[in-house]
Amino acid sequence: MKIQLITIGNELLNGKIQDRNAYWLARFCHEHDLDLIKNDIIPDNEYAFMKAFKGAWQDADLVVTSGGLGPTKDDLTKGMLARFFDKNLVESKQALEVTKKNYAKSKREYNPELQYSKIPEGFTAVYNKAGYAPGLFYQENRKMAAALPGVPVEFKTMFMEEILKKLKESFPKSSHIKKHVIVKTWRAPEAKIFNSLCPGLWEDLERFGEVSSLPNPLGVDIGVSITASDQPELEMREQSVRDAVLNSALKDFIWHIGKESLEEVIVKKALEKNMTLGFAESCTGGLCASRITDIPGSSRVFAGSVVAYSNRVKEKILNVNASTLEKYGAVSSETAWEMAQGARSVLEADLVVTTTGVAGPGGGSAEKPVGTVGVGYSSQRDCAGNLHHFPEMDREDLKRIFSQIALITLLEQVELY
Amino acid sequence: MKIQLITIGNELLNGKIQDRNAYWLARFCHEHDLDLIKNDIIPDNEYAFMKAFKGAWQDADLVVTSGGLGPTKDDLTKGMLARFFDKNLVESKQALEVTKKNYAKSKREYNPELQYSKIPEGFTAVYNKAGYAPGLFYQENRKMAAALPGVPVEFKTMFMEEILKKLKESFPKSSHIKKHVIVKTWRAPEAKIFNSLCPGLWEDLERFGEVSSLPNPLGVDIGVSITASDQPELEMREQSVRDAVLNSALKDFIWHIGKESLEEVIVKKALEKNMTLGFAESCTGGLCASRITDIPGSSRVFAGSVVAYSNRVKEKILNVNASTLEKYGAVSSETAWEMAQGARSVLEADLVVTTTGVAGPGGGSAEKPVGTVGVGYSSQRDCAGNLHHFPEMDREDLKRIFSQIALITLLEQVELY
Repeated sequence: MKIQLITIGNELLNGKIQDRNAYWLARFCHEHDLDLIKNDIIPDNEYAFMKAFKGAWQDADLVVTSGGLGPTKDDLTKGMLARFFDKNLVESKQALEVTKKNYAKSKREYNPELQYSKIPEGFTAVYNKAGYAPGLFYQENRKMAAALPGVPVEFKTMFMEEILKKLKESFPKSSHIKKHVIVKTWRAPEAKIFNSLCPGLWEDLERFGEVSSLPNPLGVDIGVSITASDQPELEMREQSVRDAVLNSALKDFIWHIGKESLEEVIVKKALEKNMTLGFAESCTGGLCASRITDIPGSSRVFAGSVVAYSNRVKEKILNVNASTLEKYGAVSSETAWEMAQGARSVLEADLVVTTTGVAGPGGGSAEKPVGTVGVGYSSQRDCAGNLHHFPEMDREDLKRIFSQIALITLLEQVELY
Repeated sequence: MKIQLITIGNELLNGKIQDRNAYWLARFCHEHDLDLIKNDIIPDNEYAFMKAFKGAWQDADLVVTSGGLGPTKDDLTKGMLARFFDKNLVESKQALEVTKKNYAKSKREYNPELQYSKIPEGFTAVYNKAGYAPGLFYQENRKMAAALPGVPVEFKTMFMEEILKKLKESFPKSSHIKKHVIVKTWRAPEAKIFNSLCPGLWEDLERFGEVSSLPNPLGVDIGVSITASDQPELEMREQSVRDAVLNSALKDFIWHIGKESLEEVIVKKALEKNMTLGFAESCTGGLCASRITDIPGSSRVFAGSVVAYSNRVKEKILNVNASTLEKYGAVSSETAWEMAQGARSVLEADLVVTTTGVAGPGGGSAEKPVGTVGVGYSSQRDCAGNLHHFPEMDREDLKRIFSQIALITLLEQVELY
């Protein structure tokens, strides 16, 4: 079942907003054994639509469009679809019923001037549980097209509750099952892993399925797509992938095998160990805490964070010695260490990780250039501070990398706890 | 100058990661008067690449690809580009120099097995300040192609520092200048603004340029794209737009006119007033602090934030009364108010804003459902706490909206200070 998504809207190409439907659909398709083969992001104009739709209609079993179904001047999708399929716009009883149902749920009245009941001949209207404009659906032999609104909650709900049903009717279940096994590593760059550390690993893993490698500034995610005819076979294959990497030199560089994010793994393991976590953050400015609190249920393990941006707050709340700040500077392993000690005490957490660094663009020095970060941790078991250097890059990226190394430090310490 | 982006990688279509390069490039192009006309997200396969590249090469002046340049087997971009342009891969002295420069910056040695110096004939290698694999650049008459790595920091740095230079050489500056004036409003929904509050505003603004309206959950950004033949004319037109909105009923709903973000406006105004800011955050979990500290120079006004996720931290660091928590609950205007009082004292800041709410999916009640947030503030001048309700949506969206209302409250209080 090949799906192609066409995302429509000038606001996505001039940077006013970031599209979220493609990422959601990608995850949804992956979980439901559907194959998202392409996503086109195009502006609100007919030339772009016709070209993209033509290409998609050739390659995909289902073409989904997102956006352009509302009541304003720049909502062009319905007319363009009618012209693509050479259909007239006609009054549809079914579309009127769906539209009235869309409005009835919140006791608002449908204004017929919006012409939601006029749709291309041969199309059906799709109920919109979360909004007012109906979607559109069309089938021609084994090919299907669905036009959905761009508002994420509407797009998501309609795809899950309406379109998926139609797909299941047309496409019987595949006889094999799939799983994507992800081996998450850090501290070794991609070229080192596959060239010197484990030169035969890629070929080794290819015996179990398609291999992919996704580098990030601190490590590499290695993926293997395995297929099997039943669950026991799938599990056996997954175990073989695990054995292959855990028996290789990569072993010491793996922090997780699975699709969970670093934040999810931390929260899950801390829950298992019944421990509480905290941060004291200078250069990451709350980003570490924000990432952990993105995870539902994090409140059961997360005590809090002291975002100590000024030295005064470092001294006052975290009890960092003025002499330490003066002698070693705010960006130092010594300060990171003292912040950790102070934060663990004031947050009453079992484990605390701290960051203090130079995210730039100003504030760097010859000794502590932009990209320098001190990371500390403190638990009843152990306490330390380390200084790391990253190449100079922009502030947001450095904050992200600084938070990444803090979270990896946190995970290591949770595991050792 | 029409630009088309082709983003390459199975990981983007199976939901493993969300692409960040398209959104960054969209914003960058918009700021630099470049026109991003399309973005294709395609898997790592030659059929998809050839089809997308052919379409892009027809329509765009510059085709940029993101991804597939690394050293592993799924890095196919170089070979596919060579085949598209019917070129052989050849050893290039220039590419070898660039590669060595990429490695020299971190004192690592280039392994010639990676074949980074072998590039399509007629192409040049592009220096990668933030990584190791070089990019590729090709020009044919007035058309250009650039292949950049997919790692966001590498993509971004190379586009800004290397590709933009080449564009400027080939495309002389346009004879007219443009500016996108953005009127940022809040508290009035889109339909209210254009239907009842200021029914003639859209047409009024259209006299100065193309008008757009982008709603968000807390307000609407109204954009006017103005064009002029010189700077004085541009300024005159911008002033006319300002006059039009400031003399309309929209006046009281505008929090800023300009392209600056809410965070930037807050930091700038606090600097002007020489005041210090802080937060105490429960439900936003550090996101407010992280957003403010994204702004370079924020350390001059930002003291810090107490992320008080647990009630214990609210009591201990922020001095919230146990009886307040018990009587009104953690999510209440009373707790938000006490958090603000306590935080201002402990952070020694001139102004503090606080959040305490239910971001879900669990934790809601009939009285305080998911989407409820208490926002408090405290300055020497004034102190208050308010309770707001938003529709239930997913946790990340709610955290973002909660942080947005906290930052708007902060801006209002900075202005009143």
